[in-house]
Amino acid sequence: MTRNASILAVGSELLGTTRLDTNSLFLTGELEAIGYRVVRKACVGDGWRDLVTELSFALSRAPCLCVTGGLGPTEDDRTKEAVAALLGLRLVRDEEILDWLKKRFRKRGREMPEVNAKQADVIEGAVVLSNRRGTAPGYLIESDGKTIVLLPGVPWEMKALFTESVVPHLTSGGAPSGIHRRVLKVVGLGESAVEELVRPVYEAHRDHEVTILASGPGEVQLHVSARGTPGEAQKELDILEADFRSAVGPALFGRDDETLEGVVGNLLKNRGLTMAVAESCTGGMVASRITEIAGSSAYFLGGAVTYADGAKIEVLGVSTATLESHGAVSEEVAREMAAGVRRRLGASVGLGVTGVAGPGGGTPEKPVGTVHLAIDAADGTRRHERLVLPGDRSMVRRWTTSAALALIRGWLTERGGIH
Amino acid sequence: MTRNASILAVGSELLGTTRLDTNSLFLTGELEAIGYRVVRKACVGDGWRDLVTELSFALSRAPCLCVTGGLGPTEDDRTKEAVAALLGLRLVRDEEILDWLKKRFRKRGREMPEVNAKQADVIEGAVVLSNRRGTAPGYLIESDGKTIVLLPGVPWEMKALFTESVVPHLTSGGAPSGIHRRVLKVVGLGESAVEELVRPVYEAHRDHEVTILASGPGEVQLHVSARGTPGEAQKELDILEADFRSAVGPALFGRDDETLEGVVGNLLKNRGLTMAVAESCTGGMVASRITEIAGSSAYFLGGAVTYADGAKIEVLGVSTATLESHGAVSEEVAREMAAGVRRRLGASVGLGVTGVAGPGGGTPEKPVGTVHLAIDAADGTRRHERLVLPGDRSMVRRWTTSAALALIRGWLTERGGIH
Repeated sequence: MTRNASILAVGSELLGTTRLDTNSLFLTGELEAIGYRVVRKACVGDGWRDLVTELSFALSRAPCLCVTGGLGPTEDDRTKEAVAALLGLRLVRDEEILDWLKKRFRKRGREMPEVNAKQADVIEGAVVLSNRRGTAPGYLIESDGKTIVLLPGVPWEMKALFTESVVPHLTSGGAPSGIHRRVLKVVGLGESAVEELVRPVYEAHRDHEVTILASGPGEVQLHVSARGTPGEAQKELDILEADFRSAVGPALFGRDDETLEGVVGNLLKNRGLTMAVAESCTGGMVASRITEIAGSSAYFLGGAVTYADGAKIEVLGVSTATLESHGAVSEEVAREMAAGVRRRLGASVGLGVTGVAGPGGGTPEKPVGTVHLAIDAADGTRRHERLVLPGDRSMVRRWTTSAALALIRGWLTERGGIH
Repeated sequence: MTRNASILAVGSELLGTTRLDTNSLFLTGELEAIGYRVVRKACVGDGWRDLVTELSFALSRAPCLCVTGGLGPTEDDRTKEAVAALLGLRLVRDEEILDWLKKRFRKRGREMPEVNAKQADVIEGAVVLSNRRGTAPGYLIESDGKTIVLLPGVPWEMKALFTESVVPHLTSGGAPSGIHRRVLKVVGLGESAVEELVRPVYEAHRDHEVTILASGPGEVQLHVSARGTPGEAQKELDILEADFRSAVGPALFGRDDETLEGVVGNLLKNRGLTMAVAESCTGGMVASRITEIAGSSAYFLGGAVTYADGAKIEVLGVSTATLESHGAVSEEVAREMAAGVRRRLGASVGLGVTGVAGPGGGTPEKPVGTVHLAIDAADGTRRHERLVLPGDRSMVRRWTTSAALALIRGWLTERGGIH
């Protein structure tokens, strides 16, 4: 049974030009997992009348309301007071919380400022949710068939409090049926190409919601969801994932928190191989992504960012003749870059990346977006790929980086064994 | 005179776990510039009753309401219909718009699908705002002392339409007084250090709002605002900027769209210098940022990502003795990396970056976050900086990248003339 929920974020800073209420994304995922559906959300400032009016309207729209922010110690923090006033409940000083607050401050080497005392005033009849990451407790209030949850606005505090204290309360009747999600990640195919490949799968599973999202140049995500208890839903998602994997093929490289650079790193580690990169148009972005992974020093020896022709010659040993006859953006130069960096650093495999990122430098034969990627491995295998990518400089560079990682991943997956 | 405004974003996709209503940030800035104050914002799904209820409540909260989304051609797009119903207005087919739509499709080589015809139904009495970037026109309705603006949800369409059509309507009485903003960017100082430096300035300008925001590891932004007509406000902001610049000193490197890598690039170009980078812990991030700038090939010769000791020796000529006696993360190795990459690529200046990004690799003497930066220039100047940075691997790497760019910027600003 799905119950409706509404989310309200309190704080004048959320009505400016710099900050969005990102807490609501987390809350929505958590609420959906335990059987709620978010039907609206809103942001309101600290002003008393605005706050009370907004709370009252939100309560009229859904039986469950989650409020974030306005639980701090300052004059502007009045969420608790507004909710109490709206429901006709009193605030009562809780000596136990006051003690806990004082101890918390003393542990950090200072006395509790007088203003913080108001954080020990609790709404009568409310469940007080202790906040182990901050000073503002949360509240859960059942009133008139409605459930109202008050949470601190600091994401780090709010998340722990919701998962540890609110979810158990809302699901006290047992493991609830809800919506559970999985993200499947694809590289090297556009949104429409992915759509075409997976259409038969989602048409066969019409009861599941499937969304295709471009998650950055060169990478596409499939968001799939299943309804049920956590156990049921995970089983459903496993079936769906298997079907999507066989529909999409090797372009589907990972799920949820997995990244392309993480997958490449694991493949290199498992095969006992080392890698080196020579980059021109991506200017260090491929190396940056590879080294984002902790422990990458085990398989990544280093890279060369050879922007100028002189650097390609001097550092990688690319031949002047090749540069002159084919140009810096060419299959030949990409191959010599890959071979040069591999030999130079004594790696098992070298990757070469050269291209026209734009906005200048394009020609009719080699328009902006033209990219050559090459692999040169110690075992003698060679690979080359030519791409013509759309978009501006930043997009071409990011897309090229994903394509380069995808090329090395493809080579690694096909190749078993040890160097 | 400030008038209150409210923003409503329509679309069930905004109530999921992946998308936020970013349009409201743009709208807030534009509204504030022409004298409005946003007092609340909300997101609601496509359902008819929810939509009408939410519109009605939003209208009761402020005399100006901006609605985004729900103007498309599909069944789910019902914003126009809901507003018309709420205000008791009729929808009338506009033959001119229908013609324009048909032509627009034909220009793109196809016939207008029948569903799109409904985009030619306009609210009677409304000002129709033509959308040159899409098929959904916008609307401006004056009713009962309220101003209601309907905009498409696609950001690219919404922005052009608002700036080109809505602003002139809302400001037809002449250049209005509003809030104008400027962002000043600081590198190498923490939030609290910046706060201390600028406090005398903002205490002397109490009528201006000043916000200090961490904008990423190692960089802090000062958001300052001034009220008035555009001309008045810009003059005020110039005065404020001058005061902040003298308070913060050279750590204030730019404003609004300026980036640290752009500032470094301009300094190199103006002085006719070239640069090369040798990176260890940042793994290519410094080179990536420098080459993000179009035209960076004029001054950036290349870089080396020397992750393994062997790469430092082989590519940069760092001595084995130095590595053995001082360790890879040391002043001496940073200096040899800078000198090595400069000589290798024949650059005017070389930058060396080495550090412990973590999570592993820390020791009591060199804990995670220890970083050494060095500059070695052809004119004989040398620089060195040691940092111990907080945070996780990603934060240390990003902070180090900013610090490295700041070091080279500092050296370039102090140094005049030509290589």
